[in-house]
Amino acid sequence: MTTTCPLPPPPSERILLAHGGGGKLTQQLLDRVFGPAFANPLLDERHDGACFTVPAGRLAVTTDSHVVRPLFFPGGNIGSLAVHGTVNDLAMCGARPLYLTCGFILEEGLELAALHRVVAAMRDAARACGVAIITGDTKVVDQGKGDGVFINTTGLGVIEHAQLIGPRRVAPGDAILLSGDVGRHGMAIMAEREGLQFESAIESDCAPVHEPVLALFAAGVTVHCLRDLTRGGLAAAANEIAAVAGLKMALDQNAIPVREDVHAACETLGLNPLQVANEGRFVAFVPAAEADRALAVLRNFPVSAEATRIGTVTERAAPLVTLRTTLGVNRILDVPSGEQLPRIC
Amino acid sequence: MTTTCPLPPPPSERILLAHGGGGKLTQQLLDRVFGPAFANPLLDERHDGACFTVPAGRLAVTTDSHVVRPLFFPGGNIGSLAVHGTVNDLAMCGARPLYLTCGFILEEGLELAALHRVVAAMRDAARACGVAIITGDTKVVDQGKGDGVFINTTGLGVIEHAQLIGPRRVAPGDAILLSGDVGRHGMAIMAEREGLQFESAIESDCAPVHEPVLALFAAGVTVHCLRDLTRGGLAAAANEIAAVAGLKMALDQNAIPVREDVHAACETLGLNPLQVANEGRFVAFVPAAEADRALAVLRNFPVSAEATRIGTVTERAAPLVTLRTTLGVNRILDVPSGEQLPRIC
Repeated sequence: MTTTCPLPPPPSERILLAHGGGGKLTQQLLDRVFGPAFANPLLDERHDGACFTVPAGRLAVTTDSHVVRPLFFPGGNIGSLAVHGTVNDLAMCGARPLYLTCGFILEEGLELAALHRVVAAMRDAARACGVAIITGDTKVVDQGKGDGVFINTTGLGVIEHAQLIGPRRVAPGDAILLSGDVGRHGMAIMAEREGLQFESAIESDCAPVHEPVLALFAAGVTVHCLRDLTRGGLAAAANEIAAVAGLKMALDQNAIPVREDVHAACETLGLNPLQVANEGRFVAFVPAAEADRALAVLRNFPVSAEATRIGTVTERAAPLVTLRTTLGVNRILDVPSGEQLPRIC
Repeated sequence: MTTTCPLPPPPSERILLAHGGGGKLTQQLLDRVFGPAFANPLLDERHDGACFTVPAGRLAVTTDSHVVRPLFFPGGNIGSLAVHGTVNDLAMCGARPLYLTCGFILEEGLELAALHRVVAAMRDAARACGVAIITGDTKVVDQGKGDGVFINTTGLGVIEHAQLIGPRRVAPGDAILLSGDVGRHGMAIMAEREGLQFESAIESDCAPVHEPVLALFAAGVTVHCLRDLTRGGLAAAANEIAAVAGLKMALDQNAIPVREDVHAACETLGLNPLQVANEGRFVAFVPAAEADRALAVLRNFPVSAEATRIGTVTERAAPLVTLRTTLGVNRILDVPSGEQLPRIC
């Protein structure tokens, strides 16, 4: 044993199966880790769930489990991702995020210090987004039956405008707006996981996007559909919406921002940046006549300062997404058919 | 290769990492498995979440991840458990269950046939409970980093009465009512997992309890607190409530129904049936004067036909749960300090 090979933390500082048993150690986790970090009046009731009052109107609910590997990556970690991911899904429903629930699946042997870091990141991200984590659950699985931490966050938000948004509202002629450059989250994870060295470190774009989205509604912009560009990236989002809506859309590769280092990393790995996951990017489908006004609103916020128009919905037809490439050729932009980047979120 | 050693299903019939990649195989899962089973107008929107209208008033939200091993056990499986568990947590908030979200974490290599069985059980359980699964998420983790299927269900319910319930409302003098016999779920899992043979098969008590609970409110019974007896069983539930409320309670072992076979199985394994998990049992804290009326209501429902009074809240004091044993001796009923039955739910 030398100073370069410190003793591992004592067993009491690692997650044991009993932390999920509903007994004293479960209680300790609540008292020492989750309770202090997430404290709020609803959570502090220590009931089987959280009870609260809502005004009459529309709500949105969304759920995501997070299994990203590694747990910590440039620009974020599984905790901030779990908050931003669900906040963003609520925003994509046009809702103001209010509450999150949080379900942890911990692997026996996880260092408590790592859990503390993750929980602190969740606390900070939730505060920054103005959401409260109001109820939760912790399970522990045997070593080798999990992978450190999995986190489910389910979000509840309130819809404060009268617009109906969703894939089925997208119409021919709609402008397709993109909130910023694409491909960073996926490449940041990939670089970290595979130990790849690029000239500059690529940081995840992991960030909440509810503020620019809510500003669109506040400004009275007509919004037909919103979609964040997570798994499968821009390509999957565009194709899913085309499929549900039954229409064609044409994108212009020259208009889609991809950072030089992300482009180079994708080239090296044979990946298409339009198919790579993002965690702070979205597309908005708006009537063409409102596109400029929408872009002006989006550009007021750092997270969407580079918002730009990348394409147009062309016609009701068999679903198809085409891309006019940098060479001026039109080709089909398809969804990834296999798995290019597992466990990206 | 003989007929007793059939070929494993082809790779296309097992879960691949790409089923979680957001591409074509993810879409296939939605189209062929989740979509048809859970079909309802909110889910069918295929949006990033579900949007719906609520009247002004109180809602309850609760979340649970389910990691039970084995996936299938006498009396239920992880799918029915995931629905009943969250429906029951909503009931414990005094809420009528309305909606569930569903987050799957699948292990690469899982047989699609097993997933189909789990999803069918969720569909059937949700229908029987009158709840809709309105949005979901699927992730896939590498083989050896999960354990078949983990399921998070988050529930949303509406509180249709004016009572405030929760541990802090429990008061000295309250009667403690138990909805039925205890210990069956834990022993059913244990027997299945360890291959134990008892004289008769012990079936889990896994069942929804929202109907008798809502009937209490409909009958105008004053309810101070409700708690289902999952991990840690009756002992953990009573101690948690005593701790949050800051009071003492006295239970009578003679009044607590434990089936003969469950009792024998617990004896064999050195377990205390009062510390064993249930999935269809709850305690209700009501003013003593209303205990008989509450029991009469509960006994109208098969799931709580054996409801009975098992004890009394005695005084505001340092939290303590005592048990008058069958031998007439008073002893402390503590929560399990270690892990007696990992991954029970």
